[in-house]
Amino acid sequence: MKVYIEPIGRLVNEFSKLPGVGAKTAQRFAYKVVNMSKDEAQAFADAILNVKNNVHYCSICGNFSEGDICEICKNRESQTICVVKEPKDVVAIEKLNEFNGVYHVLHGTISPIDGIGPNDINIKGLLKRISEGNVSEVIMATNPDVEGEATAMYICGLLKPLGIKVSRLAHGIPIGTDLEYADEVSLARAFIDRKTL
Amino acid sequence: MKVYIEPIGRLVNEFSKLPGVGAKTAQRFAYKVVNMSKDEAQAFADAILNVKNNVHYCSICGNFSEGDICEICKNRESQTICVVKEPKDVVAIEKLNEFNGVYHVLHGTISPIDGIGPNDINIKGLLKRISEGNVSEVIMATNPDVEGEATAMYICGLLKPLGIKVSRLAHGIPIGTDLEYADEVSLARAFIDRKTL
Repeated sequence: MKVYIEPIGRLVNEFSKLPGVGAKTAQRFAYKVVNMSKDEAQAFADAILNVKNNVHYCSICGNFSEGDICEICKNRESQTICVVKEPKDVVAIEKLNEFNGVYHVLHGTISPIDGIGPNDINIKGLLKRISEGNVSEVIMATNPDVEGEATAMYICGLLKPLGIKVSRLAHGIPIGTDLEYADEVSLARAFIDRKTL
Repeated sequence: MKVYIEPIGRLVNEFSKLPGVGAKTAQRFAYKVVNMSKDEAQAFADAILNVKNNVHYCSICGNFSEGDICEICKNRESQTICVVKEPKDVVAIEKLNEFNGVYHVLHGTISPIDGIGPNDINIKGLLKRISEGNVSEVIMATNPDVEGEATAMYICGLLKPLGIKVSRLAHGIPIGTDLEYADEVSLARAFIDRKTL
């Protein structure tokens, strides 16, 4: 049954494409837009098109960039490269204000089940950066899941023979968690990787 | 700290204006747009602008309409008017496929605390429709909250002297609810409005 007039139905449909947005939420978003001023709606639409037109990938690290080279590659001199799966991982790490090196975005992880092999992600770019010299350490910060681990191991295997130090983010129980609530895999890993005090 | 490049930050900011969308969700939405094709992003932006340009209010009932008069007012002959607070209430009732009459959208309810009086909502339009004749019943379907009840009572007081039948949606315990989980106000109302079998 047709419950919306066409323009609203169309916008509800567009909002439904966003991750985690169902029919009810899409409807709320659409009504919000209906009640926006013309200027607000224009700014919203412009922001969407602007992203498509002005967001590129950094030709060095593969992170989002407005120009050919991203702000991080432009402004930081570092011999440490942090390898991540996606650009949003760069955002998560940058928020920490903890890491001052540069990044390399793989745009995926090796996943044979999904037909994604080493050549389908940006490993070649990483090897090229390393062959150009001036890299002392590569930190593998891919996710701690099967694909992330496999990718970290694969890249480690490529870099070790080149004499590059390769490290992996530490796993264990999250800080602030009660032991009884920690998931079993993390707790087991915390035992294996226990530190001498 | 600046964690996003400008175009993405701007879009995250726009998405944050949607109801119930926080920083994390806005970021997910923005990344989704970044990964859309140009055509998809264009369709999204167009749908937003299209809503602003092509959604008007029906000059008879106040519901959303593409033209001057909405599809419901155009296609239905009815002496029964269902009065609701907002256009989305029309959608909720239409989905039932239960009511075949016409609507009247108040665009608000009387709320002295917020400075909204009877003249600030579309009561005048309702009285005009009734004075033009051919209305036998007005169903007050405003929300069962303080403002909705007050508005229903106020409008009832205006229409009763005109010889119009005014009714109110039934309140009580929702169907399928266990008595012990029903809220107290609804349960109390269910007792007061009990029906003889």
